[in-house]
Amino acid sequence: MKKIFLSMIITCACSIAMAQEFNSATHCVLQSDRSDGKLLSTRAIVQNLLEQTPVALAFKESFTTEEFGEWQLKLRDKVKDLMKHPTIRGLPAAQKVSVAQREGYSIEKWEGYPLPNTVMTWFVLIPHSAMQQTPAVLCIPGSGQTKEALAGEDPVVPKFKQQVMPHKNNMAIHFVKEGLIAVVVDNPCTGEACDLEKIAPAYYDYETSARVLLEMGWSYLGYTSYLDLYVLNWMKNFKPIRKERIIVSGFSLGTEPLMVLGNLDPSIYAFVYNDFLCRTKERAIVLTCPDSKGYRRYPNSIRHLIPGFLNNFDFPDLVAALAPRPILFTEGGLDRDFNLIQQAYVLSGQQNHFTFYHYEKYGEPSKRSNLMSIPKGQTIESYLDLVNVDPDQHYFKAEIVIPWIKKLLAEEGMGIKVSP
Amino acid sequence: MKKIFLSMIITCACSIAMAQEFNSATHCVLQSDRSDGKLLSTRAIVQNLLEQTPVALAFKESFTTEEFGEWQLKLRDKVKDLMKHPTIRGLPAAQKVSVAQREGYSIEKWEGYPLPNTVMTWFVLIPHSAMQQTPAVLCIPGSGQTKEALAGEDPVVPKFKQQVMPHKNNMAIHFVKEGLIAVVVDNPCTGEACDLEKIAPAYYDYETSARVLLEMGWSYLGYTSYLDLYVLNWMKNFKPIRKERIIVSGFSLGTEPLMVLGNLDPSIYAFVYNDFLCRTKERAIVLTCPDSKGYRRYPNSIRHLIPGFLNNFDFPDLVAALAPRPILFTEGGLDRDFNLIQQAYVLSGQQNHFTFYHYEKYGEPSKRSNLMSIPKGQTIESYLDLVNVDPDQHYFKAEIVIPWIKKLLAEEGMGIKVSP
Repeated sequence: MKKIFLSMIITCACSIAMAQEFNSATHCVLQSDRSDGKLLSTRAIVQNLLEQTPVALAFKESFTTEEFGEWQLKLRDKVKDLMKHPTIRGLPAAQKVSVAQREGYSIEKWEGYPLPNTVMTWFVLIPHSAMQQTPAVLCIPGSGQTKEALAGEDPVVPKFKQQVMPHKNNMAIHFVKEGLIAVVVDNPCTGEACDLEKIAPAYYDYETSARVLLEMGWSYLGYTSYLDLYVLNWMKNFKPIRKERIIVSGFSLGTEPLMVLGNLDPSIYAFVYNDFLCRTKERAIVLTCPDSKGYRRYPNSIRHLIPGFLNNFDFPDLVAALAPRPILFTEGGLDRDFNLIQQAYVLSGQQNHFTFYHYEKYGEPSKRSNLMSIPKGQTIESYLDLVNVDPDQHYFKAEIVIPWIKKLLAEEGMGIKVSP
Repeated sequence: MKKIFLSMIITCACSIAMAQEFNSATHCVLQSDRSDGKLLSTRAIVQNLLEQTPVALAFKESFTTEEFGEWQLKLRDKVKDLMKHPTIRGLPAAQKVSVAQREGYSIEKWEGYPLPNTVMTWFVLIPHSAMQQTPAVLCIPGSGQTKEALAGEDPVVPKFKQQVMPHKNNMAIHFVKEGLIAVVVDNPCTGEACDLEKIAPAYYDYETSARVLLEMGWSYLGYTSYLDLYVLNWMKNFKPIRKERIIVSGFSLGTEPLMVLGNLDPSIYAFVYNDFLCRTKERAIVLTCPDSKGYRRYPNSIRHLIPGFLNNFDFPDLVAALAPRPILFTEGGLDRDFNLIQQAYVLSGQQNHFTFYHYEKYGEPSKRSNLMSIPKGQTIESYLDLVNVDPDQHYFKAEIVIPWIKKLLAEEGMGIKVSP
């Protein structure tokens, strides 16, 4: 027994010794160590290639109104290409599986069959106050979240119960309490759509399914947006919903399908984007500081990988293309990017349809960075600070979202409390 | 101190209890738990999609000679599409960096500039016996191997010195001792092409570079085969080499660029395939037994991912398309796949150009499995046994390769000892 403990202590001591030897801060930037400046390290070469990759469909502030309109159509076609949604006819109709009463609203569970041999489920929260033609929100969760977490229902996998601010993050409850119909989906691989996580794994495995999809030329986002679009189309035919007033609200990971749906479906009325606005290519370029073990990892996992995406656009471009439809950002980013999108809304004649808030910590202009480009060699912590992100305060900002939506619908004579 | 040890013991006890609860063997097959048989788990749905994915360019045993020729051209075009090699003009010429004498041969180090701002290096081992117009072998290492390991030189990263049978796995030495010129490349991310592995990480990180390449629509194999083709083309202009007698020899990971180069460049004379022959789609379909923690991982990492590859073909198809050029397999697989390739060689009129050996353990037909399809729900161990792989004996089989090459060249009046 003593021998075991001794060996544990030795192992710890060695790890500390090794950690002391490697100072990651001195290796944050990828660079050549040759006198001719050429790169020999593959990691440095591919990083350089990524930096040099042209972006075919970037939004340009110099666009005329006409060019902007043409660009939007090109961008839509390219999003469609990249998402590779299959066209399948003759699928059976969705069915209501159950209904239960909660305080002030009913919750229905539905299932649909978006692919052969496949079932997906979603919740519909209908306020007791609702009449026909009620505005509705499609709620898309973030990583690790489920439709149950967003709807305040018991979790499918109790060990994965929403731990982070559950009463702020139950997005659908906030909407239904204001008289809106809330439709809530799961992201693939989570909740009811998980594999063995119910009985064994310590976290949801998104990556293996993402990998299988990539192998057949698809992607996690392509698959997710296909399912979400299926539910969105179902919403348009769900009687209580006013199909011209469907809002898409995405939290964190859920902002990715939001951008895809927004570009593929011009009938979506408005958008709630609850995450910071990121230039993912820039993030990959500047986040080159190695971790404590010397690995210089990619900033996110392959569930975010869409081969060919960065050759065409980045998130701010996809958002700019949503103009003139109303959109709200609740968790900031760089003013540089918001100014770009602002210009798209100006071009589309609806400058007032674009609203953004920074994290409270970075609310004062003097307290936030206002960079036009981010220096290379960042750690995740330094990067987040430079793009004005306060990770501890990453939650669904009902306090911003609900007033914005109420005002938006009120302006159109569509107060969302449709009956007292 | 006591408290810490107690907490360690409690942690251990819990882990054991959890491990006992989950019996991976009872969950090896992905299946529906619904009465209608529909799948709800994303992992099961995407697995089902992969199974159903059509393969556009599979080799068919029913091909006529004419159809076979047409299919080879189509396959070549598709490989070209998927590999996405850039066309870059005006690159500077490769340069010899150093030369040293070894027993019976000289070793030159060269560097080339296959992309802007980029350098790659390779070794050329030239037997003292060589005259002009000597047959040559392009040697491509396996995972974790370097050109130094294959050439028996001191490693660039001493902690990663070839540990597994170094005197069998120094592929280039085997060739040069027989009078052939051996050209040896690194796989990207290893040896001289590594990043911080020289000072910190515990293993070569291929995956991050692969990820960066995938982000821009390329792939690790696309990039690797581009570099290897660059060196192959250099070989054709290297005076001592008889360019009509260039053999490509790949070990393990190196068999992937071998197949790509073989299909892209019809001038390659022959191939040494030192790995088992795998149907990678089948492997992904049947390897569904979860690990001890309940994760049902993909069988390999993203350095093997080429989006769209499996929609078109698999390894046996790529090999069948090499007919009638001589090829040797040294580490078996399923006779089912070898019979397929045999048929391609029959069609091409050169049945004797196709040679395969099984692992010794599976050499006797009675000792190996001869399945036409592999049942789902395998572990990696059960899978390897079913496809006749003896992982402990995975090494470069000089004892098979050298006699095969000597015979091949002798038959053409090209004994490889060009001077005594």
